[in-house]
Amino acid sequence: MEMYSGYMGKLIEELEKLPGVGGKSAQRMAFYIIGLPQERVERLTGSILAAKEHIGYCRECFNLTDREVCPICGNAERDHSTIMVVENSRDLAAYEKTGKYKGVYHVLHGAISPMLGIGPADIKLKELIARLEGDVNEVIIATNSSLEGETTAMYISKLIKPTGIKVTRIASGVPVGGDLEYIDEVTLLRALDGRIEL
Amino acid sequence: MEMYSGYMGKLIEELEKLPGVGGKSAQRMAFYIIGLPQERVERLTGSILAAKEHIGYCRECFNLTDREVCPICGNAERDHSTIMVVENSRDLAAYEKTGKYKGVYHVLHGAISPMLGIGPADIKLKELIARLEGDVNEVIIATNSSLEGETTAMYISKLIKPTGIKVTRIASGVPVGGDLEYIDEVTLLRALDGRIEL
Repeated sequence: MEMYSGYMGKLIEELEKLPGVGGKSAQRMAFYIIGLPQERVERLTGSILAAKEHIGYCRECFNLTDREVCPICGNAERDHSTIMVVENSRDLAAYEKTGKYKGVYHVLHGAISPMLGIGPADIKLKELIARLEGDVNEVIIATNSSLEGETTAMYISKLIKPTGIKVTRIASGVPVGGDLEYIDEVTLLRALDGRIEL
Repeated sequence: MEMYSGYMGKLIEELEKLPGVGGKSAQRMAFYIIGLPQERVERLTGSILAAKEHIGYCRECFNLTDREVCPICGNAERDHSTIMVVENSRDLAAYEKTGKYKGVYHVLHGAISPMLGIGPADIKLKELIARLEGDVNEVIIATNSSLEGETTAMYISKLIKPTGIKVTRIASGVPVGGDLEYIDEVTLLRALDGRIEL
């Protein structure tokens, strides 16, 4: 794209870094953006900056939110003694969309991966342990059924077991290697119902 | 996404407007952006605004460029008497990448489409006609072989014919490497009609 000068190249390069965006899509997006009225371009960049500025982690569960405490943790009608542990906010959103889970969550923001050099200290694990000092009956581990997700599940269960708190794992109705984010609600619910104690 | 407040919803909504981006991808992108360091987010929005600010149309061919006249029109070694007419800058980029075409271009920024209410006055057509007053030997029409592209090609050829300037249309037929079995009938018939003597 050198014929379009550095501005175009730089834009395409930045767009390519977005998840799921390849060279061709980045080029299409760049041409599209250049063709938009100034006001629409500013609406796009404004929404990016505003979301980045206002959205942070919930003090309790580390879900993304624009408040101190997210609406789920702030909801007195939810069962605060049941904590579902997920890898990221997208997985939380997937379970939340089922509308059936009434407990709260804990977002790890990652999974243990010796391959990628991600250890227990690199995810929100000690924050989870700290929460167990409250009134907790059950921790449901809903990490992905990938190698990293299973490793993380094992690690967490070993960590929690000595406390006497019930630790469960969502059933593997979820296909092995599957990413929670892309799985249909029925399968998600079946996996929840069939959870087994670890 | 109401659980993430308006900022997240607004961002996802804006990202969904990009070409080729659906609801799921927009959500993934939004979560990804939120998770980036502030500096990386500003690099993304900065590259969008800079490209929009500095890139405009070439005065000659209406290709996108950050100069008055694009590098192709400004290149004295190109054949300025041969003009290839394309629908948009992406199509120009596709031909330019072949490295074989030595003429110049004219970017219409659209195609005539009665269905979408896009008429001859809505694309850079009178600008093309104005260029014909210079020293032009041939106009190669390289609009897409879609209904709109063909309509536009016909319209342009009728407009130019009376001037006596040679008007040609890029061949349409079976793509190189294409398997006849999987090619639609319209293309097969057009390839037959356009057969050349060997």
